[in-house]
Amino acid sequence: MTVNNFTKKHKVTVIGSGNWGTTVAKLVAENCAEHPDTFEKDVQMWVYEENVTLPKDSRHFDASIGEQPQKLTHIINTYHENVKYLPGIPLPHNIVANPSLVDAVKDSSILIFNLPHEFIGNICRQIKDHIAPYARGISCIKGVSVTDDKIELICNYISENLNIYCGALSGANIASEIANEEWCETTIAYNTPVVDRRDENGRPVANGESNGNDVANGHSKQLTPLPLDYPPLDHDEWALLFSRPYFTVSMVSDIVGVSLAGALKNIVAIACGYVEGHGWNMTAKTAVMRRGMQETIRFANEFFPGQIEPSTFWEESAGWGDMIVSCTSARNWRCSKLAVERNLPIEEVEKTELNGQKLQGISTTREVCSFLRAKGAEERYPVFMAVERIINQEIKVEEIPKLFK
Amino acid sequence: MTVNNFTKKHKVTVIGSGNWGTTVAKLVAENCAEHPDTFEKDVQMWVYEENVTLPKDSRHFDASIGEQPQKLTHIINTYHENVKYLPGIPLPHNIVANPSLVDAVKDSSILIFNLPHEFIGNICRQIKDHIAPYARGISCIKGVSVTDDKIELICNYISENLNIYCGALSGANIASEIANEEWCETTIAYNTPVVDRRDENGRPVANGESNGNDVANGHSKQLTPLPLDYPPLDHDEWALLFSRPYFTVSMVSDIVGVSLAGALKNIVAIACGYVEGHGWNMTAKTAVMRRGMQETIRFANEFFPGQIEPSTFWEESAGWGDMIVSCTSARNWRCSKLAVERNLPIEEVEKTELNGQKLQGISTTREVCSFLRAKGAEERYPVFMAVERIINQEIKVEEIPKLFK
Repeated sequence: MTVNNFTKKHKVTVIGSGNWGTTVAKLVAENCAEHPDTFEKDVQMWVYEENVTLPKDSRHFDASIGEQPQKLTHIINTYHENVKYLPGIPLPHNIVANPSLVDAVKDSSILIFNLPHEFIGNICRQIKDHIAPYARGISCIKGVSVTDDKIELICNYISENLNIYCGALSGANIASEIANEEWCETTIAYNTPVVDRRDENGRPVANGESNGNDVANGHSKQLTPLPLDYPPLDHDEWALLFSRPYFTVSMVSDIVGVSLAGALKNIVAIACGYVEGHGWNMTAKTAVMRRGMQETIRFANEFFPGQIEPSTFWEESAGWGDMIVSCTSARNWRCSKLAVERNLPIEEVEKTELNGQKLQGISTTREVCSFLRAKGAEERYPVFMAVERIINQEIKVEEIPKLFK
Repeated sequence: MTVNNFTKKHKVTVIGSGNWGTTVAKLVAENCAEHPDTFEKDVQMWVYEENVTLPKDSRHFDASIGEQPQKLTHIINTYHENVKYLPGIPLPHNIVANPSLVDAVKDSSILIFNLPHEFIGNICRQIKDHIAPYARGISCIKGVSVTDDKIELICNYISENLNIYCGALSGANIASEIANEEWCETTIAYNTPVVDRRDENGRPVANGESNGNDVANGHSKQLTPLPLDYPPLDHDEWALLFSRPYFTVSMVSDIVGVSLAGALKNIVAIACGYVEGHGWNMTAKTAVMRRGMQETIRFANEFFPGQIEPSTFWEESAGWGDMIVSCTSARNWRCSKLAVERNLPIEEVEKTELNGQKLQGISTTREVCSFLRAKGAEERYPVFMAVERIINQEIKVEEIPKLFK
């Protein structure tokens, strides 16, 4: 990048501080410290405040405080560790844990959304009137939002509700591995709004008065351009913000493909856990993955026609890469496998294995299947529909091969 | 299929009787017995004759013969088991093991090639003047034939050398699993020659005098049409011959995509074994698979331009399906993983683990990399080239992530 004399730098806020949110805050903060020309050093991380008691054997235990409960934000800002959701991982000192959502997003030009998808509606309502109008987002949230016969990508939901542009990050990555700096990859989809595009001299490509092309591109309202006193926000800058030596980022423009692949693979992962729990071999499991990927691409073409790039599925980390990892080592797969092994409904396994957290795949399956029924499209999606029926104990795993003739 | 009064039926010969050859003969013979309108019941299987001694604890042990060596063809035809290469699997009685290659192919309209690819040149020379001129082939042989800067698909090599048309079978399937009738899938690529195409009344679509379209389609010589007194040989009939309740067949026309995916995935499988042997996680291994698939598609587009269907790679068993199984549970992967774990060159592991058989992936890697060097294309194929350098002990596995920046 050429050095420019921008009077502003991008201020980054991570909204969410669970396992994955804190991991993303860590890598983003590492890059903000390394690239002071482009980013402000401090990264805001919104933390849903709670009290935490440090046990005596914690390396942060302080005898003068003893076992008195302490605020999680205080612990993060003092000891630079999220002892509750990412224990054992030292965090960069430029992460600022902030219990106030409104304060955390104030004046930020970059918002990174990283929290369970059921909270996103409420979060958008709270921050709507407090964000910079030119802020830009990246959603790390998997899943889609389904109401009756309408389906919406989470990043588009954010774009619509905040009237900003929001891209999506998804890939074959597992938070704990990235937190430990084990090498893996991801895909970021960001279709830079026309109002933000600049030519080689840094001048806006679009006429400032109009962003008709952005509306055509899926933004239903007029976007406020990113002011020219900020460095641009295009593929290079997003890669600069997210890439680490242990985290390889590939940039694409296909937010539909990346979002759908990230959401629907959880249904396939449940199917694969069932098949594997039943003792079938790798070739059978691979056959299920392959058919799950076919249905994913069919779904994208049917309900988002003309909006995907097929290469997202076949060569991106967010496509086949994520499918393989999710069907081999992630928790939707693990819980459905246990369900067969223990002869229990998957929702019983969810209760005992996840400490109260929910399996994303179960709600995604129910929502997507209900959407397919509303559209009368069940027959074209035998894998997705079979998973719902197995979750509901209407059919047995043994019936899977029959469905695939 | 409508019933026709064809005076001839297809006679099938399987050339090769190793583990995979015998498995394919088994499923094909099951179908020939079930579909007498289309196929002759008996299936010829050419067996490279050798003497076999049945041990006393064999269920076929005959005290009157004792431990005298017996011909393998005699054992197969008597006991209906290939005790040497597919022990424990009962074979259909309509498999006829034949030690004479020339006699085995005589009058057959269908030739299935299933033997190590280094033998194919010699086999073609031997049968060339003895096959029916209208015979059609399916190659189950993975690998490509490389000489200096020329690369050729095995099925095209067969087509050229025998002047017949030959398709390709490849997929996520492991012989021993199919032999045990565990469910899995495959892809058959067969681009029915114009001279063989028939309209709904069974009449030839092409003018019998000319098959210019077949020449355009990659056949360099005039093909002899399949006589009209035979049932047609198109996708339906190939599916009828190969599909079993435990073996799901998908038919495509893309012989280049199916052949290249089947050959090149062995290079990627070696890379994955190295990565996994080194203790890296599933996300790292998946990243290598993904980049391996990118290079496979790049290779296809660069050296066989306009000849592939991208969907072969992303949705067929021969594409991503085979890639996953090969990188997770097949022998190229297993040997390279052991090589790292035992700190030995892979060729040492090959010697101790494979009873004298060769790892297809090693020769494919060397041939493909030598071809890429001849074309000056090394830089665009970092995974393929890295595998060769690790095999040759020029670089260490640890250097893999660096290559992928």
